[in-house]
Amino acid sequence: MSYTIYLSGEIHTDWRDQIINGINQFKLDVDVLSPVLNHQASDNIGQDILGEESQPFWKDHKAAKINALRTNSYLSRADIVVVRFGDQYKQWNAAFEAGIATGLGIPLIVMHAPELTHPLKEIDASALAVTETPSQVVEILKYICQ
Amino acid sequence: MSYTIYLSGEIHTDWRDQIINGINQFKLDVDVLSPVLNHQASDNIGQDILGEESQPFWKDHKAAKINALRTNSYLSRADIVVVRFGDQYKQWNAAFEAGIATGLGIPLIVMHAPELTHPLKEIDASALAVTETPSQVVEILKYICQ
Amino acid sequence: MSYTIYLSGEIHTDWRDQIINGINQFKLDVDVLSPVLNHQASDNIGQDILGEESQPFWKDHKAAKINALRTNSYLSRADIVVVRFGDQYKQWNAAFEAGIATGLGIPLIVMHAPELTHPLKEIDASALAVTETPSQVVEILKYICQ
Amino acid sequence: MSYTIYLSGEIHTDWRDQIINGINQFKLDVDVLSPVLNHQASDNIGQDILGEESQPFWKDHKAAKINALRTNSYLSRADIVVVRFGDQYKQWNAAFEAGIATGLGIPLIVMHAPELTHPLKEIDASALAVTETPSQVVEILKYICQ
Amino acid sequence: MSYTIYLSGEIHTDWRDQIINGINQFKLDVDVLSPVLNHQASDNIGQDILGEESQPFWKDHKAAKINALRTNSYLSRADIVVVRFGDQYKQWNAAFEAGIATGLGIPLIVMHAPELTHPLKEIDASALAVTETPSQVVEILKYICQ
Amino acid sequence: MSYTIYLSGEIHTDWRDQIINGINQFKLDVDVLSPVLNHQASDNIGQDILGEESQPFWKDHKAAKINALRTNSYLSRADIVVVRFGDQYKQWNAAFEAGIATGLGIPLIVMHAPELTHPLKEIDASALAVTETPSQVVEILKYICQ
Amino acid sequence: MSYTIYLSGEIHTDWRDQIINGINQFKLDVDVLSPVLNHQASDNIGQDILGEESQPFWKDHKAAKINALRTNSYLSRADIVVVRFGDQYKQWNAAFEAGIATGLGIPLIVMHAPELTHPLKEIDASALAVTETPSQVVEILKYICQ
Amino acid sequence: MSYTIYLSGEIHTDWRDQIINGINQFKLDVDVLSPVLNHQASDNIGQDILGEESQPFWKDHKAAKINALRTNSYLSRADIVVVRFGDQYKQWNAAFEAGIATGLGIPLIVMHAPELTHPLKEIDASALAVTETPSQVVEILKYICQ
Repeated sequence: MSYTIYLSGEIHTDWRDQIINGINQFKLDVDVLSPVLNHQASDNIGQDILGEESQPFWKDHKAAKINALRTNSYLSRADIVVVRFGDQYKQWNAAFEAGIATGLGIPLIVMHAPELTHPLKEIDASALAVTETPSQVVEILKYICQ
Repeated sequence: MSYTIYLSGEIHTDWRDQIINGINQFKLDVDVLSPVLNHQASDNIGQDILGEESQPFWKDHKAAKINALRTNSYLSRADIVVVRFGDQYKQWNAAFEAGIATGLGIPLIVMHAPELTHPLKEIDASALAVTETPSQVVEILKYICQ
Repeated sequence: MSYTIYLSGEIHTDWRDQIINGINQFKLDVDVLSPVLNHQASDNIGQDILGEESQPFWKDHKAAKINALRTNSYLSRADIVVVRFGDQYKQWNAAFEAGIATGLGIPLIVMHAPELTHPLKEIDASALAVTETPSQVVEILKYICQ
Repeated sequence: MSYTIYLSGEIHTDWRDQIINGINQFKLDVDVLSPVLNHQASDNIGQDILGEESQPFWKDHKAAKINALRTNSYLSRADIVVVRFGDQYKQWNAAFEAGIATGLGIPLIVMHAPELTHPLKEIDASALAVTETPSQVVEILKYICQ
Repeated sequence: MSYTIYLSGEIHTDWRDQIINGINQFKLDVDVLSPVLNHQASDNIGQDILGEESQPFWKDHKAAKINALRTNSYLSRADIVVVRFGDQYKQWNAAFEAGIATGLGIPLIVMHAPELTHPLKEIDASALAVTETPSQVVEILKYICQ
Repeated sequence: MSYTIYLSGEIHTDWRDQIINGINQFKLDVDVLSPVLNHQASDNIGQDILGEESQPFWKDHKAAKINALRTNSYLSRADIVVVRFGDQYKQWNAAFEAGIATGLGIPLIVMHAPELTHPLKEIDASALAVTETPSQVVEILKYICQ
Repeated sequence: MSYTIYLSGEIHTDWRDQIINGINQFKLDVDVLSPVLNHQASDNIGQDILGEESQPFWKDHKAAKINALRTNSYLSRADIVVVRFGDQYKQWNAAFEAGIATGLGIPLIVMHAPELTHPLKEIDASALAVTETPSQVVEILKYICQ
Repeated sequence: MSYTIYLSGEIHTDWRDQIINGINQFKLDVDVLSPVLNHQASDNIGQDILGEESQPFWKDHKAAKINALRTNSYLSRADIVVVRFGDQYKQWNAAFEAGIATGLGIPLIVMHAPELTHPLKEIDASALAVTETPSQVVEILKYICQ
């Protein structure tokens, strides 16, 4: 029986493509959902559709809410949320989405380098798997799809 | 009618005390919950009670889970979760707790300096108030308690 | 066993006081919750606490969210929501709160003049009682509290 | 992945058609649900099927409940509820449905002219987007469907 | 968009067939679920599969539970539960299933002769339509399916 | 730790008093809730408060809804619902309340004479105890309160 | 209408195959879900994908969590959970999954030899059918699928 | 703020008393709930109150259900469920209650000897703490109550 997974977090490397390639390679019955990955479009979408704002706060506010229409909907339909933390930026949104998934009772797979273990300990502790690479996520999907 | 609030996030300044002092000063009918604020005790509690671990990952794991016994319980009892982001550390746990509250449908008040607006836009967008100071939180509590 | 009721809607007549007086007169075991009833304070609270806004939309936005901290919390704790529609203003917020109560599964008592029956038919149809006067609400409370 | 949207509110202009045309034009994977849009049929359906009533209240009551069989079911299946407020009539049912969606945790997109900002501030404040035109709604759908 | 309806209650007349015929005649997009309608099979199924019981209570008990595997599952998947009360037998199970639907938040259509209004007033009061004939149910389905 | 029980069903014998006496005699920590037990008041309450109706259906309708304000609220607060079926009347409301409790996940204790086993088999099958006398209910309460 | 069943518990006999064969033989509209049935793969999957552990506790821990990604997801999608207890091993996981299903409100069919009645009485008491053989489960499915 | 804990599982040693003594010694704000601990009373309660059964299955059945009136109610009110596995008996009920708590989203603390790690790995993996002694449970409570 198929799984729907939502790939949350870091958007500057090709980890999502690696997971999707693995899913295709092994013909796994897994649907993949993601946020909008175009950073600039995502930042400007509020102004682009709903009009200019003089305050950066409200520009961000309108953009974040339009993105939430997609991400909250996709998150809530996922059987598993995979969250990746990279080595750049504050990435509070990744942690926030991990929290939403937890609050909704949706299981997490976390992916990050071992150096990030200490600041991520609460998120790791609530996850069902803590991985370091996309291929580990693919292995897990392969195992649970057999 | 009373409110229960949970004060999440940054533990290195006295913002919680300022809020509690304001609540006391104005005799507001507000119960305040917090995580354990002793950083070192919180980091070591897994080993201290359940035994040594040779791997830092598992040391952190056991500590994070014992802390979750308190924080998840307190979070889920709160009428309002106040989350403060400071200017140090990664603070992924603060964002994670904001997400859990959101997943559980508990409203947020966020507190942070304006410089952090952009990386916190998703959390701000899901909050019912974005503040900068403890006294603003106290003012809000005073208003909703009248 | 006691009831908690939330009195939603019109704020320009003394209908809430009449209900509260009735509850006191008959010594009914009923706790009464209300939104903030000071119209001007309620409209300005966003700016007053969180700072000026140049756009009326954002001024209203911040005020409405702070008020939601109180109203959503009180609504969700109520055993019964009483909503009164008057003969002035658009009163969309009254209908909105009636909808929130319905979405949460909390029963409604509606109060309005017979002239408003047609535009309120959907709200009346989801209510457990449609009244015209505060004393009818008090009679209902007296009956269910016996 | 597809979205299901429910188009609530004003039934006297062609805003629903404009949204549906945009969805078709851009081949968006969006299912559209609506209440029954024939005003007269909707008003009379209670009597037409279940028999005459001598009191207008009960005529309205039976009609509103039959309509609720459709609208409550459709509302609860929607990923997003779009609510439009026009410049005529009391439109309490639009606000009521916005509230039901909010109580059920379904996100809102609101559409109305800027003149209505103040009386709609509570509904706007709980929405993820406040629009003025059907084409803005289409743009949002296009963005979240990419 | 399609509806799933569950036809609960009286099993000695052909009211279900009449509704199904109407659905077919008007090509309505409605899926129909029912309990097992063979009275004798339904009464004996516990013993037939799980073995003889010397006590009628336990014979009934085992049968009722096997039937609950079907009815509870079907009830909980329905968008609308239609419950018919006839003029024979105690029919407590019909009222029980109406209650389960109500407890689960699934709307009811009730069908019964006018003579039964008084003893059914609580069930009628929680229904969205009170009908007397299968053709009225078909008319309602036709209306909400348009 | 205390229990709250709701005593549903038959109102023409003193079974509720017998249970309450037993609770008092053994000083059990049990709160007892009941519907309004005055049959005539309960039948007429709609008209008495909200005005005359020419149709018996609407007279019953308004009364049943006011009673539901009490019964639904009390039912939903109960830890255990005790439902008694007597030997008179149709008692569909008792079965309906047993169903609501079941839909809400609240456990049932049923009380009835052995002659009623067959028509009550579905309700008995979903109960945690099937009793014949008030003293058996008291014995159960004594046991679970120890 | 189809059912989805999850077959939990004992993995050392061919009871799942017997049920699947029966479903195929009678062409029942039943989807069957199971945990991973390869005992060794299931025990080692944590280390195999996520790396060696020096402590057996953590080896088991990582494996159990990866298996939970599958089993919790499948359990929560099931209309009925069938749990079989064999005559070997402690089988606490079977009882644990029966409990999860119960906590989620999913009905149980239990299968075990009569010798195990006493230690399984609590699980049996919460089940809708207690069987001894796979063919009894098939008979039940055949009955509820008719 | 206080915690309510439910102490599930093994009833043949004094582990509950040790935890209660620790709570009293450190004056912790913790309410303790337990099943009925008298093994013989618990086994016979069905027959003792509701009458003799000729079949051991039904004797056990009636007893298990009366016990469930207490245990399910207490379980669902707990903030934390502590489950202890001893070295005797099958203890499926302990694992079943751990599962119910998990299905309800209530966090677990597990207690058992290290020898039981492998068969308890799924339960341990879903727990927030795995302990070996009552004093470790007391230490955890002391830490989260500070």
